[in-house]
Amino acid sequence: MTSVQGLKGTRDFYPKDMQELNFIFNAWKAAAGKFNYQEFDGPMLEPAELWSLKSGAEIPEQMYCFEDKGGKKIAVRPELTPTLARMVAAKQKELQKPIKWFSIARCWRYEAPQSGRLREFFQLNVDCLGAESMAADAEVIANVVEIMRSFGCTESEFYVRLNNRKLITSLILGAGVEKAKLQEASRVIDKKDKLSEKDFILALKDLGVKQEAADNILAILKSEIADIKEDKLDETGKEGYKELMELIGCINAYGIFRYCKIDFSIMRGFDYYTSTVFEVFDKSGEFRALAGGGRYDDLVADFGGEKCPGVGYGMGDVVLGLFLKKLGKMPAAKPEVEYYVAPVNENVARQAIEIAVKLRKKANAEIDITGKSLKKQFEYADSIGAKMIVIVGEKDLKEGKVTIRDMKTGKEEKVVLDLL
Amino acid sequence: MTSVQGLKGTRDFYPKDMQELNFIFNAWKAAAGKFNYQEFDGPMLEPAELWSLKSGAEIPEQMYCFEDKGGKKIAVRPELTPTLARMVAAKQKELQKPIKWFSIARCWRYEAPQSGRLREFFQLNVDCLGAESMAADAEVIANVVEIMRSFGCTESEFYVRLNNRKLITSLILGAGVEKAKLQEASRVIDKKDKLSEKDFILALKDLGVKQEAADNILAILKSEIADIKEDKLDETGKEGYKELMELIGCINAYGIFRYCKIDFSIMRGFDYYTSTVFEVFDKSGEFRALAGGGRYDDLVADFGGEKCPGVGYGMGDVVLGLFLKKLGKMPAAKPEVEYYVAPVNENVARQAIEIAVKLRKKANAEIDITGKSLKKQFEYADSIGAKMIVIVGEKDLKEGKVTIRDMKTGKEEKVVLDLL
Repeated sequence: MTSVQGLKGTRDFYPKDMQELNFIFNAWKAAAGKFNYQEFDGPMLEPAELWSLKSGAEIPEQMYCFEDKGGKKIAVRPELTPTLARMVAAKQKELQKPIKWFSIARCWRYEAPQSGRLREFFQLNVDCLGAESMAADAEVIANVVEIMRSFGCTESEFYVRLNNRKLITSLILGAGVEKAKLQEASRVIDKKDKLSEKDFILALKDLGVKQEAADNILAILKSEIADIKEDKLDETGKEGYKELMELIGCINAYGIFRYCKIDFSIMRGFDYYTSTVFEVFDKSGEFRALAGGGRYDDLVADFGGEKCPGVGYGMGDVVLGLFLKKLGKMPAAKPEVEYYVAPVNENVARQAIEIAVKLRKKANAEIDITGKSLKKQFEYADSIGAKMIVIVGEKDLKEGKVTIRDMKTGKEEKVVLDLL
Repeated sequence: MTSVQGLKGTRDFYPKDMQELNFIFNAWKAAAGKFNYQEFDGPMLEPAELWSLKSGAEIPEQMYCFEDKGGKKIAVRPELTPTLARMVAAKQKELQKPIKWFSIARCWRYEAPQSGRLREFFQLNVDCLGAESMAADAEVIANVVEIMRSFGCTESEFYVRLNNRKLITSLILGAGVEKAKLQEASRVIDKKDKLSEKDFILALKDLGVKQEAADNILAILKSEIADIKEDKLDETGKEGYKELMELIGCINAYGIFRYCKIDFSIMRGFDYYTSTVFEVFDKSGEFRALAGGGRYDDLVADFGGEKCPGVGYGMGDVVLGLFLKKLGKMPAAKPEVEYYVAPVNENVARQAIEIAVKLRKKANAEIDITGKSLKKQFEYADSIGAKMIVIVGEKDLKEGKVTIRDMKTGKEEKVVLDLL
């Protein structure tokens, strides 16, 4: 006898929990289907080196890594994007463009479990590769908005914060940050929401950013797109600005700009983003990001393929589940079955099975397998949401009949076996 | 630039492969639903100790094990049953009986990859706990037969080999095997299909089983249920015989005895089985077992719960996929989308998006995001299985119209935008 508990930061999905998870999965699949994205997946374990390259500093630190019995370094995937890049690179020539794929990837990160963050989670990935145009970025953003709307969420409950890496990089450099410190400064900006203004300035100064530059950055992050003076930008900045304006145009065509906000403080923690970046948040500010993504034009080339533009996002199930529950948009799990077949005693058990076989040809049916009394069977049938109870009795059977009870109305009716 | 390959024994599921996997998953879910089994799942990683107890000798050897950053011993699950037992034990009082659950569990085993055996695979688990009666055993067997039939497989293509652990154990002891050698002898019997008769006898003798006892065992394994002399069995043997006869009765009531065969050589490699054991095979004998299961009445108690009878089976996706492909029962992946929206040039790109938004309210729709020529768009729409192309042209738009081309008939029709 032993009593083992599941690992910290993991969940056991009992049927009720699984129904909630499937509610989220079904919404994800439906939205991907509407936009004609095809489902794919890669292995749960991958060579660890897949994450040594482009995932940013945090990911390798949080990875579950080990050596297998053959001495090979293995990682339990912390995210799906490098697998996507690997798979595209491996069959780049034969794959038709644009590659419009989605996946619901089970992932693991070794973090301190806390609200909205677990060690095991599921992440929807929606990616579009082979399209340079901002129409692709708008499409994936429209897709995540579609998901949120399909849950019944409104513009007062969530919003998409948008930025462009080229533009913000140009603005940061223009603010007086040295190029060598750009990556570190970007990471501080990425954490801005979690810091007070004072701590934010201090964090930048810790990197060696001068007071004036730090103040400039703070002002930039608070500014609006209308404040940008295009003619003062460098070439990269102009390109980013143009992309952002194009993106806004497409988002307007989708009729979803009311769900979006340009926000220069959105950076994303991953190093592979090259242009558009975005995150989806609840408007109350209570939760972590619900989703995040962006454009990664160099990623496939980084994984041995030819250069191939790409844009996509990830959306985890954990924060989303908390958010939907808080808003009352997670439907209560409700058991339901069409027929419950109730043999009155052991003598009719085999005939009851034959009846269940017949009923299962047209609907789902449960049959007693525990030898419960009829009274207990009725209680049980009620608890599993049976719509009809098919009572199999000796006397009825002699007449070639069963009694069917409608659980909603309580009405009982004798039905000839051949008509079942 | 790097070029990383996926791990040996793993699969990349490109959309075409994913459609095949989903074809299997959907059949599994449909059959479980017909019998009103509820979906559940546990974590992919579990404490390694969960498998130290009852899985038999092979499993711990094949496990992916490692220590996490906190020094905890972790296993990537090689099977789901111990997780099931852990979950049931943890909430045994509140869970309504019978517990009828299924899961599609992603699992890992470190084995030499070969035909039908990979390191990563998916396994359907169907389990029924809280029912002692052989009606439960028959129900899960009827469930696996239902799956095979739903693929269109006939009795000439697959069969269920049935045995009872109590009966076979009694017969082995009766044949002259010492009790201390029972477990090892059982493992040799489990491998009988892979050995010649000569090697089988040798393997038994290697354990110290005498020649006469080994010959007796061989004769038993070839015998039929009709050859069993019930009165010569010990108490355990009589119990097993009675259970097997009851099971056959229920299987007959299900009308599926023609898919079944009593086979005393079926042992199953797992130590937790206590009564019924069964395996599903292709009739040609080309493949490994398609599924296997049995009754495990002590398992929940072994995991810290109260004693709770249980029966269930597992069915992997790998052998099944090979089998279905060989029989031509795996449908070819066929892309399909209702609408493809084709803007004739960049000037109408935003109106085309608005049209796609409209169409997606009633069906799925893809829109060009790559700026392809109209000719290339037609070719592409054809390749993705579009049923209709919605051509968005400047002249049509001025009249408030688009042209819709039916890809099957080739007919084109102008439609007023408001009627889309």
